[in-house]
Amino acid sequence: MATQTILNGVNVDNLFGVIDAIKGTPAVADFKFRIENKWMNGGHNRTTVGNFFGACEIQTREGFVLDNAEHQILLGEDESPNPVEYVLHALAGCITTSLVYHAAARGHKITEVSSVIEGDLDLHGFLGMDEKVRSGYKNITVTLKVKGDVPKETLEELVEVAQARSPVYDIVSNPVPITILVEA
Amino acid sequence: MATQTILNGVNVDNLFGVIDAIKGTPAVADFKFRIENKWMNGGHNRTTVGNFFGACEIQTREGFVLDNAEHQILLGEDESPNPVEYVLHALAGCITTSLVYHAAARGHKITEVSSVIEGDLDLHGFLGMDEKVRSGYKNITVTLKVKGDVPKETLEELVEVAQARSPVYDIVSNPVPITILVEA
Repeated sequence: MATQTILNGVNVDNLFGVIDAIKGTPAVADFKFRIENKWMNGGHNRTTVGNFFGACEIQTREGFVLDNAEHQILLGEDESPNPVEYVLHALAGCITTSLVYHAAARGHKITEVSSVIEGDLDLHGFLGMDEKVRSGYKNITVTLKVKGDVPKETLEELVEVAQARSPVYDIVSNPVPITILVEA
Repeated sequence: MATQTILNGVNVDNLFGVIDAIKGTPAVADFKFRIENKWMNGGHNRTTVGNFFGACEIQTREGFVLDNAEHQILLGEDESPNPVEYVLHALAGCITTSLVYHAAARGHKITEVSSVIEGDLDLHGFLGMDEKVRSGYKNITVTLKVKGDVPKETLEELVEVAQARSPVYDIVSNPVPITILVEA
């Protein structure tokens, strides 16, 4: 039985297997992620994250339940993080995973990744009190700490790769077209 | 004791109280949200969502722990949703809360909000296999169902307001500047 190369917790043989599968059949790369959400009360709502489409078939799983809520200062009961906090969580996770996967693909051992992310938001936008103020984050700062068994320059290169390849970094820093369909 | 007006689970008196406080002291509107994230292994990492700054002081809370992980088809163990799924969760929650809060401010009773959100992502981008393909979502479709004790036109207007005022809708559909600082 052939041994498998695992680096940074990533099965590198399978990673190159995915790349080869996409080279053979480009549609393997087409993913459609999907969630369902239901309003509960006030700023509290609940999401079900279930199956998704990818690698030419429906990918099944047990699925997850996530809540959104608002802190008392934002008129909620703080049952969970709020939507803009989930964006920071998604951004941190995506930069980290992008760095770790691309390091594994290049044969670089990573020993630590941690980050603190802060986002500045001016409520004048959400409340419609000033048309010059946007509703979302004015800016986001990521403070990233990365260690590995590689030279400093390689770590810096990996941060650049992570930034260029991270799906959530792209989603937040560039426009994504959103279509809203309203059902009766 | 004066009675409080609660509509859609939102304390409308407190909502107008926030608006008045911001009119008096614009800095009340400045919020800074913050998370910390730590890599665990492979595509698995963990976020702590703790205190944040807003309304001119640090807002304390017990806080939350959230994981990011990847499904087996994306070389993980599926311990939690993945970062791009969290983006859809945040978007659903934010559109919903924006609609519900603005409806409350206008005196409209909402009875149901639910949504299905789908996002199309082509792995050629993340994997760096095609420079013409972006890393993030190519497009996102929100199918929104809203009911309330108001005419259809009012519901349509509220969806437009939610779209215009939702912080996460703005973050995803427009560019947010992100600064990455790398610590040794």
